[in-house]
Amino acid sequence: MSDAVSPLAPESFPDMPPLAGVAISTHAGGLRYRGRKDLFLAILAEGTSVAGVFTQTLCPSAPVDWCRSILNDGDGTARAVVCNSGNANAFTGQAGADAASLTAQLIGDQLGFDSRRIYLASTGVIGEPLDEQSLRHELPKLVDGIAVSGVEAWRAAADAIRTTDTFSKGAWSSIDGAAAHVVGIAKGSGMIAPDMATMLGFIFTDLPVEPDLLQECLSSAVRKSFNRITVDSDTSTSDTVLLFATGEQIDDDLNDRHDARFPAFQAALDSVCLDLAQQIVRDGEGATKFVEVTVTGAASDDAATVIAKAIGDSPLVKTALAAEDANWGRIVMAVGKAGQAAERDKLAIWIGPEQVSADGMVLDSYSEDRATVHLTGDEVVVKVDVGVGDGESTIWTCDLTHGYIDINAGYRS
Amino acid sequence: MSDAVSPLAPESFPDMPPLAGVAISTHAGGLRYRGRKDLFLAILAEGTSVAGVFTQTLCPSAPVDWCRSILNDGDGTARAVVCNSGNANAFTGQAGADAASLTAQLIGDQLGFDSRRIYLASTGVIGEPLDEQSLRHELPKLVDGIAVSGVEAWRAAADAIRTTDTFSKGAWSSIDGAAAHVVGIAKGSGMIAPDMATMLGFIFTDLPVEPDLLQECLSSAVRKSFNRITVDSDTSTSDTVLLFATGEQIDDDLNDRHDARFPAFQAALDSVCLDLAQQIVRDGEGATKFVEVTVTGAASDDAATVIAKAIGDSPLVKTALAAEDANWGRIVMAVGKAGQAAERDKLAIWIGPEQVSADGMVLDSYSEDRATVHLTGDEVVVKVDVGVGDGESTIWTCDLTHGYIDINAGYRS
Repeated sequence: MSDAVSPLAPESFPDMPPLAGVAISTHAGGLRYRGRKDLFLAILAEGTSVAGVFTQTLCPSAPVDWCRSILNDGDGTARAVVCNSGNANAFTGQAGADAASLTAQLIGDQLGFDSRRIYLASTGVIGEPLDEQSLRHELPKLVDGIAVSGVEAWRAAADAIRTTDTFSKGAWSSIDGAAAHVVGIAKGSGMIAPDMATMLGFIFTDLPVEPDLLQECLSSAVRKSFNRITVDSDTSTSDTVLLFATGEQIDDDLNDRHDARFPAFQAALDSVCLDLAQQIVRDGEGATKFVEVTVTGAASDDAATVIAKAIGDSPLVKTALAAEDANWGRIVMAVGKAGQAAERDKLAIWIGPEQVSADGMVLDSYSEDRATVHLTGDEVVVKVDVGVGDGESTIWTCDLTHGYIDINAGYRS
Repeated sequence: MSDAVSPLAPESFPDMPPLAGVAISTHAGGLRYRGRKDLFLAILAEGTSVAGVFTQTLCPSAPVDWCRSILNDGDGTARAVVCNSGNANAFTGQAGADAASLTAQLIGDQLGFDSRRIYLASTGVIGEPLDEQSLRHELPKLVDGIAVSGVEAWRAAADAIRTTDTFSKGAWSSIDGAAAHVVGIAKGSGMIAPDMATMLGFIFTDLPVEPDLLQECLSSAVRKSFNRITVDSDTSTSDTVLLFATGEQIDDDLNDRHDARFPAFQAALDSVCLDLAQQIVRDGEGATKFVEVTVTGAASDDAATVIAKAIGDSPLVKTALAAEDANWGRIVMAVGKAGQAAERDKLAIWIGPEQVSADGMVLDSYSEDRATVHLTGDEVVVKVDVGVGDGESTIWTCDLTHGYIDINAGYRS
């Protein structure tokens, strides 16, 4: 954890409500960090549905392997989730797999739950085995500290999962028309963080949602939120978003898309995922600008996302934004390298409200001064129409500054 | 041009020989830069064969469009090549296309050559039209300065095509068994340079090589050299490599692969291309380390190249190398995100001569101290075996430092 909070951080941690069916504990286990909490446990009511999405890396961490396995083999229910920060338990071979199953076993035994209903996540340095003795010594203390959820518990949980994060990330939403909520916490300083497990999200609802539908809802929400952010194009070994539906508030299961509560639940879930995802970008390593990139006129929505990410990942675009330099030639370059259909001679570009180009040429009316005024703010909007179709997409990213180099060339935690 | 020369620069510009059939001129035309040469012209003997490879961007510059068009439509011969630095003539619409054809027309008229045998390249800022009056005023002076090639002329040419380059780039090789040479100049501070046309290469041989075979030879050489380097993953609008074979030294055309001179010519061409490509990496913006990444055990050579580039493009790997931090977990991360087959539990990693891991786990024998000793040098070698097949590839890159941010967040030229 850094001492300096990102200049793009929200003013305060949100006033998150308790969630029926979720009890929380955090503990300073000293697995790697000293003097701070590094373990998080949530115990879930019996019958809680679970859904998950995981990193696409070919070198996933042991906890990702564990979660995929129990999610695929199980009945779609979960009883707990455990997360440690400081050690990703990635690239640790059989020792890593053993440490993951030991963690689930220890928690399960103490609570009387099947270990294969216990979900795991780890975030931190890659390649170092988790110490078995520490797990045996510290996990019981974690279980002993269990308490009901509520704003202080949520904040402690969001703290305990941090690595290079400069602030704790939480978001919640009530579900219109249902006396239920969606509550989530996340960690990450972008899609990446140094050596780190990177992006983790744990989301809870007290609405009863059947597992298959819950997975559909989560996949849809992640596609529009966590999968639309980038800090520096590096993908971690451990990205994990888990969604748990305890169903404690309401008896009547939500199990098909025609249920009147479905749109309100999806909207609340989308809102929480997008809020958490944008908080991750706001904590992007070294970030001084929060940047929204919208691409329209692409061959498809997917093509628009690829082009928007090419712009958002480009080191040249990101350094220009850091410098508040309306260097739009770099945007043209990034569109060109994206490999998706784009009509150079129809390209239209906007920097904030200022239109730079139309039909592949700079406009006579374009004012670099007006574009620069927009860039001096800490929220930047770039829009490009590529002139070939109706596909569109928006992604969120940050600028690339000396701070990024300082953090990543100077830090191993 | 920066005042500070890259710490990875060669000791001196090579002692490049005159090349029969090539006459050179350079001129300070003031098209953008003041007080330095920014125009380069090479006049080529009648019957000179030409081959070219160009940027894969979907937003190519006007000179790239021009070269592609005359290369496709023509008879494979060229009479001149003209390059300006400071203005890429990219994203300039019809005005840009007009400026390109005017340039060829002015040079052709003065020399009595068909304008469609005159090849063009431009490098510099994107989106600003080239000034027609300046072209009409300065290009005749460029033609007037023509002189035979030779070390001073080559050096002046390599100077005139620079933008953010910190040193002039040249390389040459004799062709074994033939009284002929391959001589080349290039510019670029990586695959990218800020706002820039980026990578240009002009290569000449006095061996007579038939155009189709010349194109095959160039494509093969570029695949193993210019297409195996990366500074920051950004691809320019104007990347161009042109190869001219004047045939002035030898009467007997090289026109099939069974010619005994073919392997020697290809070897000389490969050597010149690789030397120039590596010089571009050595001038990578902000670079303090020259980095070779070799991937073996991939599903194919192409897959190995993708994985090697994922490592070489990763901001986290590059910042770790800048910090001389043997943070090999980031290499695992990059292999995982590359999207090519890799067997996590067979992964073997070397940093210089030090083997870090085997079978997906760090070795007991691994010494971070020994790895760090290797990283303190200015030439770093990383090797990864991904354990699935026989594919292999090597790419070259540089580290990512504060210098990169300084150059790209502070500079528009």
